[in-house]
Amino acid sequence: MAAASEDALRRSLAERQAAVDAQAEAVRALKAGGGASKADVDAAVEALKALKVEAGAAARRLQQAVGAGAGGAAREELRQAVVNTLERKLFYIPSFKIYRGVAGLYDYGPPGCRVKANVLSFWRQHFVLEENMLEVDCPCVTPEVVLKASGHVEKFTDLMVKDEKTGTCYRADHLLKDFCKEKLEKDLALPQEKADEFKRILAILDDLSAEELGAKIKEYDIVAPDTKNPLSDPYPFNLMFQTSIGPTGLSVGYMRPETAQGIFVNFKDLYYYNGQKLPFAAAQIGQAFRNEISPRQGLLRVREFTLAEIEHFVDPEDKSHPKFVDVADLEFLMFPRELQLSGESAKLLKLGEAVAKGTVNNETLGYFIGRVYLFLTCLGIDKGRLRFRQHLPNEMAHYAADCWDAEIECSYGWIECVGIADRSAYDLKAHSEKSGVPLVAHEKFSKPREVEKLVIVPSKKDLGLAFKGNQKMVLEALEAMSEKEAFEMKAELETKGETNFKVCTLGKDVVITKKMVSISMEKKLEHQRVFTPSVIEPSFGIGRIIYCLFEHSFCTRPSKSEEEQLNVFRFPPLVAPIKCTVFPLVKNQEFDAAAKEIAKALTTAGISHIIDTTAISIGRRYARTDEIGVPFAVTVDSATNVTIRERDSKEQIRVDINEVASVVKQLTEGQSTWADVSAKYPAHVGPQGDQE
Amino acid sequence: MAAASEDALRRSLAERQAAVDAQAEAVRALKAGGGASKADVDAAVEALKALKVEAGAAARRLQQAVGAGAGGAAREELRQAVVNTLERKLFYIPSFKIYRGVAGLYDYGPPGCRVKANVLSFWRQHFVLEENMLEVDCPCVTPEVVLKASGHVEKFTDLMVKDEKTGTCYRADHLLKDFCKEKLEKDLALPQEKADEFKRILAILDDLSAEELGAKIKEYDIVAPDTKNPLSDPYPFNLMFQTSIGPTGLSVGYMRPETAQGIFVNFKDLYYYNGQKLPFAAAQIGQAFRNEISPRQGLLRVREFTLAEIEHFVDPEDKSHPKFVDVADLEFLMFPRELQLSGESAKLLKLGEAVAKGTVNNETLGYFIGRVYLFLTCLGIDKGRLRFRQHLPNEMAHYAADCWDAEIECSYGWIECVGIADRSAYDLKAHSEKSGVPLVAHEKFSKPREVEKLVIVPSKKDLGLAFKGNQKMVLEALEAMSEKEAFEMKAELETKGETNFKVCTLGKDVVITKKMVSISMEKKLEHQRVFTPSVIEPSFGIGRIIYCLFEHSFCTRPSKSEEEQLNVFRFPPLVAPIKCTVFPLVKNQEFDAAAKEIAKALTTAGISHIIDTTAISIGRRYARTDEIGVPFAVTVDSATNVTIRERDSKEQIRVDINEVASVVKQLTEGQSTWADVSAKYPAHVGPQGDQE
Repeated sequence: MAAASEDALRRSLAERQAAVDAQAEAVRALKAGGGASKADVDAAVEALKALKVEAGAAARRLQQAVGAGAGGAAREELRQAVVNTLERKLFYIPSFKIYRGVAGLYDYGPPGCRVKANVLSFWRQHFVLEENMLEVDCPCVTPEVVLKASGHVEKFTDLMVKDEKTGTCYRADHLLKDFCKEKLEKDLALPQEKADEFKRILAILDDLSAEELGAKIKEYDIVAPDTKNPLSDPYPFNLMFQTSIGPTGLSVGYMRPETAQGIFVNFKDLYYYNGQKLPFAAAQIGQAFRNEISPRQGLLRVREFTLAEIEHFVDPEDKSHPKFVDVADLEFLMFPRELQLSGESAKLLKLGEAVAKGTVNNETLGYFIGRVYLFLTCLGIDKGRLRFRQHLPNEMAHYAADCWDAEIECSYGWIECVGIADRSAYDLKAHSEKSGVPLVAHEKFSKPREVEKLVIVPSKKDLGLAFKGNQKMVLEALEAMSEKEAFEMKAELETKGETNFKVCTLGKDVVITKKMVSISMEKKLEHQRVFTPSVIEPSFGIGRIIYCLFEHSFCTRPSKSEEEQLNVFRFPPLVAPIKCTVFPLVKNQEFDAAAKEIAKALTTAGISHIIDTTAISIGRRYARTDEIGVPFAVTVDSATNVTIRERDSKEQIRVDINEVASVVKQLTEGQSTWADVSAKYPAHVGPQGDQE
Repeated sequence: MAAASEDALRRSLAERQAAVDAQAEAVRALKAGGGASKADVDAAVEALKALKVEAGAAARRLQQAVGAGAGGAAREELRQAVVNTLERKLFYIPSFKIYRGVAGLYDYGPPGCRVKANVLSFWRQHFVLEENMLEVDCPCVTPEVVLKASGHVEKFTDLMVKDEKTGTCYRADHLLKDFCKEKLEKDLALPQEKADEFKRILAILDDLSAEELGAKIKEYDIVAPDTKNPLSDPYPFNLMFQTSIGPTGLSVGYMRPETAQGIFVNFKDLYYYNGQKLPFAAAQIGQAFRNEISPRQGLLRVREFTLAEIEHFVDPEDKSHPKFVDVADLEFLMFPRELQLSGESAKLLKLGEAVAKGTVNNETLGYFIGRVYLFLTCLGIDKGRLRFRQHLPNEMAHYAADCWDAEIECSYGWIECVGIADRSAYDLKAHSEKSGVPLVAHEKFSKPREVEKLVIVPSKKDLGLAFKGNQKMVLEALEAMSEKEAFEMKAELETKGETNFKVCTLGKDVVITKKMVSISMEKKLEHQRVFTPSVIEPSFGIGRIIYCLFEHSFCTRPSKSEEEQLNVFRFPPLVAPIKCTVFPLVKNQEFDAAAKEIAKALTTAGISHIIDTTAISIGRRYARTDEIGVPFAVTVDSATNVTIRERDSKEQIRVDINEVASVVKQLTEGQSTWADVSAKYPAHVGPQGDQE
């Protein structure tokens, strides 16, 4: 696309963003003023939403224009190579394969399962232990009331259409997306006007309502892809797996769609457990479920997955973080809203500056962004293919203060793997309201504070005489007045003795006289502040992180004879499913005995390992061990000292048999690097053949 | 109960057991002979089942007579004390408490969650790493076909009755049990005859059919306990949580009731992954679900729980185990079938002898019994309250070769916490049949073996001419003959030229002539043996083990002033949720700085810990840390050296501040005992008050 056209997109975006800002200011003013009716505010909010959708669409048009093209085939090829190796080596297995499987369900096979256990164990160390978080473990089966409060029963849906004859279901947006993409790619005679229309639809796809989607499907005569039958109108399908708790069939339950709710409902107990002090964080690792309409994207979009979530509770008036200094100097790819809206790419930014400038809303949010960055890069995620992208206004829930996604680039594009959101007080307030149990924190003042409070005391007797059956509605309306309204009324009553007062619930004005209500400001002593904490939520899709890690760790290198390409997973020792293999060079009793002795020492040291005694060449055996990412291989070619080979450099050192376990332990636990041990032990450049 | 009456029960049992043995022998003979009809065999098997039920009932009557009475109130009191401490300290939290909870669902709060993580991590080390098991991780959502093959859709049920007016559901056996117990306990005028009847019912409760249960409920006029309304007839309620996979509503799924099936369906891949070698074991840790009709027994009977299961696949012709010698000398409480049937108690037996004598069916089963014993006692389960109980004939599935339960005694009685079963080839065969994928192993012969095989070749032409439409049934019956039947027929045909032949599917005899079938033994060369492996399955109820561990670790001791009882969990360091607390003796900058330095060193060493800087007495702080089972407490009373206190002995040593982390690490990881470090470092008998 020409630069001129990019400029046009940029200008269009800037205009739309300005319109959003102006409207947002207008909404704030309306709400703060207190004089506007609910209908007026609602209308303004709706207008704001529409403007945000427009701005978001413009931003995506620009991003597509900038980032389009290039590398699609190569990506596809890489993915095939990785996925083939993963399935052949049983990192993953399509679940229930002998019964032809179930879409969106995968098993972790032996090496995959170990990688997952290593990632979770590091997560616990890096977050839970380091920050003294309160870890909890709640059930997957969740009663309906909890998920009604959280909004999932109403809103956790995708739009679906049905083949009107066979009943086969499709995601409505997928069908429209496929249609537009195919037209753009294959219809060479497509007029420019039409092409622009399809591009625009692709950009705003996520924001289309059921009606809009349905209208487009009708307009383009989109039919069921398998049968060409007509399709139903789109309707929302709830993505939770539903079940029934107990035998009566009356108690609806769901398999949790996230682990967070288990923490929120326990807030009160956890707050007391923590000595009624803020901030503190709770954490949970567990299964979550999402009954996808038709899962795509292989291992990235599945129906059951492991989440690791943190809910960090903090005083909304103080979101500073004492350890922020530890991460302030980190510099990595960030993609703030402004860069997205101006069509630029992610930029290397210093975290400390991003927080200081207000790009990141607060220190605590910034601290977690930094910690997530360290977590992912320690696992082996490539820094160049990791960015932190800020949510655009239209992506963010209305209550959220700020949201950043850790996105990792893989063959499917940039994938959201960790969400880090400042959700303000939304979740705790929702459960307080629904359960009637106040989920609040207290700040005890060192000495009581004098505060002025508005006191409105309606006179029931006089209201009753004047309004009879409507008394209650008038009384409630009076009590609900804002400070501004109350003082305007007080002034009127004092000057005129009476005033007109609009009672929304009655749909009319009534006349209020002086004796019906007393309005005053009173001074009170307060001993504590009671407030709903804000929550900052880093939420990790463990399966997605692991899949991206597999792609980032994968590489191929030629065999020694250069006749074939060998696959290698360059996992850091922390992640590697097996830390060490042991090979007797040739089959004899002496070497076997030495190998067993080494294996025993490795077991005692807690190092996972395998012995490979198959009678194939040592080069083949190295290749086999490289393919599942084992970082170190011990070759027993003598009964007294042996070689240790490092996977990536293929270098070898010679080590006394009694020292092997401790050297491997140091290497895998990070006390020594390969450079350290290479300096200490003699290099081995022997007759052992490497990759043949 | 008088000894004479016990003797009578013993005699009655012996007689019944003899009858079982005789009938079992008869069934074997019938099956081996091959001459008996299916109906005859079925009838004999039914008779055997009935005899087993009788024998089981007799055994339980005797056990109750021997073990009855004593300690009920004390147990109840202990349980209350333990459960109160557990809930107060958030080891457990009733799930969704602010919404008044859901029966049978519990959260692990912070210390409980850590205990669970410690137990699972030790399980991985003790079983998976030590034996090089193949760990897998499969989804909870399971399609119906898998659970039909395993038998869960048909048989995973409890019998339920409904209040006919309100629809409230009850477990039928619970109501009958409660009725009988109450009569026995409270009806002082109960005639002996009736008392015996109620006791007999309690003994055979588990074996009653729906009809028998229904008849008893009618006979005793048992009504709904809450409303006194009449009850429905008992009917089976499936205990799996049902759901629907995908949006169509047509694909039934269940939340898995165990993790084992995920391993069985992957057998083929795992066998190839293991280089097509037997034996090998696969393992899985994960959630399992059981939609209890009305959960009782608090934390022991829940609707969602963590299982850790091992499936060890072995050649049915060789169940020896190379590492059995490592556990053969272990001696612990075993409760073989014979002791149960003769009304004796569990006895200390040497595992090696139990296997040698055939009490335990085979070495591999014995090996796992030994490893489970080591696992549980390392966690802190009291050896005196742990026994391995063999299943009685009527408890065991017909296909199982032998089953032993690790039972732990707690306030609820002896609780099955680990099941260790030799399930023979049942599971793999069931999935082979249903899926059509052969789940078998191969033994390649070093040189081909000559084997004689029965070859039956029916002549389709002649059968067709003789039997027309019935040809297929006759043909199949001929091919299905056993070796014995075939050779009898061959003899008859050779002497008489024809013979009568019963075709069950036709329900009549037909005449077979010589030209209709050729029967011979042929010599063939076989290169391998193809067989379905046996599976030995140790299955761990992690939640139950943890609960029993809590009871076994709990004790109380008087405070220093002896005014109150203090609670202590004497967890071994392996299990303790937090390994170490750090207390500055008094609040000052110097001590705080030292405490922080120690905390940092502990974090680096990977030791979980907390700092307690609350301004309460050191004795109170020790009591608080004892109550969550922290084994070591560091008190900072100087900036250079500090004290370390051991929880159970309350002894203290004085250690240089720089050594604290390494000493605590040695103690918690088992390299040093308290005795070791006490010998090395000076004892501290200072002014610090212990429990005040």
